[in-house]
Amino acid sequence: MSDVFGIQAVRSALRGSADRARCLYLQKGRRDARINELIGLAREHGVRFQTVESTWFRRRLSEGETHQGVLLEVLEISLAAEETLFETIPTWHGPITILVLDGITDPRNLGACLRTANGAGVQALVLPKRNSAPLNAAALKTAQGGMDGIMVVEVTNLARCLKKLAAEGFWLIGTDGEADVLHSDADFAQNAVIIMGSEDKGMRRLTREVCDQLVKIPMFGSVESLNVSVATGVILYERQRQLARN
Amino acid sequence: MSDVFGIQAVRSALRGSADRARCLYLQKGRRDARINELIGLAREHGVRFQTVESTWFRRRLSEGETHQGVLLEVLEISLAAEETLFETIPTWHGPITILVLDGITDPRNLGACLRTANGAGVQALVLPKRNSAPLNAAALKTAQGGMDGIMVVEVTNLARCLKKLAAEGFWLIGTDGEADVLHSDADFAQNAVIIMGSEDKGMRRLTREVCDQLVKIPMFGSVESLNVSVATGVILYERQRQLARN
Repeated sequence: MSDVFGIQAVRSALRGSADRARCLYLQKGRRDARINELIGLAREHGVRFQTVESTWFRRRLSEGETHQGVLLEVLEISLAAEETLFETIPTWHGPITILVLDGITDPRNLGACLRTANGAGVQALVLPKRNSAPLNAAALKTAQGGMDGIMVVEVTNLARCLKKLAAEGFWLIGTDGEADVLHSDADFAQNAVIIMGSEDKGMRRLTREVCDQLVKIPMFGSVESLNVSVATGVILYERQRQLARN
Repeated sequence: MSDVFGIQAVRSALRGSADRARCLYLQKGRRDARINELIGLAREHGVRFQTVESTWFRRRLSEGETHQGVLLEVLEISLAAEETLFETIPTWHGPITILVLDGITDPRNLGACLRTANGAGVQALVLPKRNSAPLNAAALKTAQGGMDGIMVVEVTNLARCLKKLAAEGFWLIGTDGEADVLHSDADFAQNAVIIMGSEDKGMRRLTREVCDQLVKIPMFGSVESLNVSVATGVILYERQRQLARN
């Protein structure tokens, strides 16, 4: 993750590489035509923005750096596009597992899921462009190298992407605390997409509706749910166990 | 977790409830007979201590509180003693699962394991007194209520406690990345103890030596290991799956 700051630099970055821009930080109280233009560009390219106190810039940047009250957080890694995923799928051998995280907004949870997905042999991680945590420094630190060897794909319309995957022969398994089927009884077909929702709200309705099967991880104690990275590990390893048995 | 501060209050707490004391913080540069007495008490009761800058106290306490350069972090919850565990075991019905964390020194990992253990229906969590993260505010926050309904036991000599559990008919399953047996092929007997080591160093030698069986979770990608709470979930849910099949 790198920081781009100063009005002109931020404007160029929002124009040239908005796909890697993650968040635009604006100093509270500063608002003029040039700032408004940046906000317009951020809106246009779907980049989040938020206002911060002037002290925030002092903590974030080295002394003497001229930020003019604007800072753009830019990913050093670029995520794959949906087309790239569909072009690559035919080149993968053996059972393919794709993990989808729908509504995971905490970067550390995202990183933890990435590490788990890597360990469990997932080929691709699909994230919706909105409603997803940024793959920022905190996420990458938690991932412990989990980005390597996994294609991380960002899609604009998750439900549409899932329908395309279904058309390619993937079985779509969603997780839902209210489901009747246990995760260990899931129908883990050769090629499968495992969809995890957020811990509190679960998957979004549109995502849920395209699933072929909904499964739940049984809860034996008093906590309401598992952490999403733990739930991801439990499901992915159950899939691997079943694949090894076939 | 609560804070006890000021020399006299800390001295009383170290004398009266050292079992719940977690860490003694001492202001850098302050060293006199009274401080030395506190250090002596901390050593005597096995309470960790560390020196901190004076600014640390300002951040930690409200303005105007007189700390005299000492602060003792005290658990609001008390952990069960080893005797209590062995007295309680005969009262539990059905298959009993005990989780042991050996060398988990990060409070958030400890909390995450506690949440996972609760979800997976573990009856007791056993922690060695040394070489273990404090059950502090960060741990309890991550645990998301995972303390409820689980007996958390602190033991002085883990290897000795494990031998006593073996004598009570528990099967001791340790996890080790170098093991030959996959976790899904583990011999999950009726009553089992699952032992997780730290992500980097694994279990300690003395712990490993008392295990009946060592198992590993296979790694299919490029990361070296799973987060310990994820690994805990994968193993505990595999045990639950097998118990449900019997």
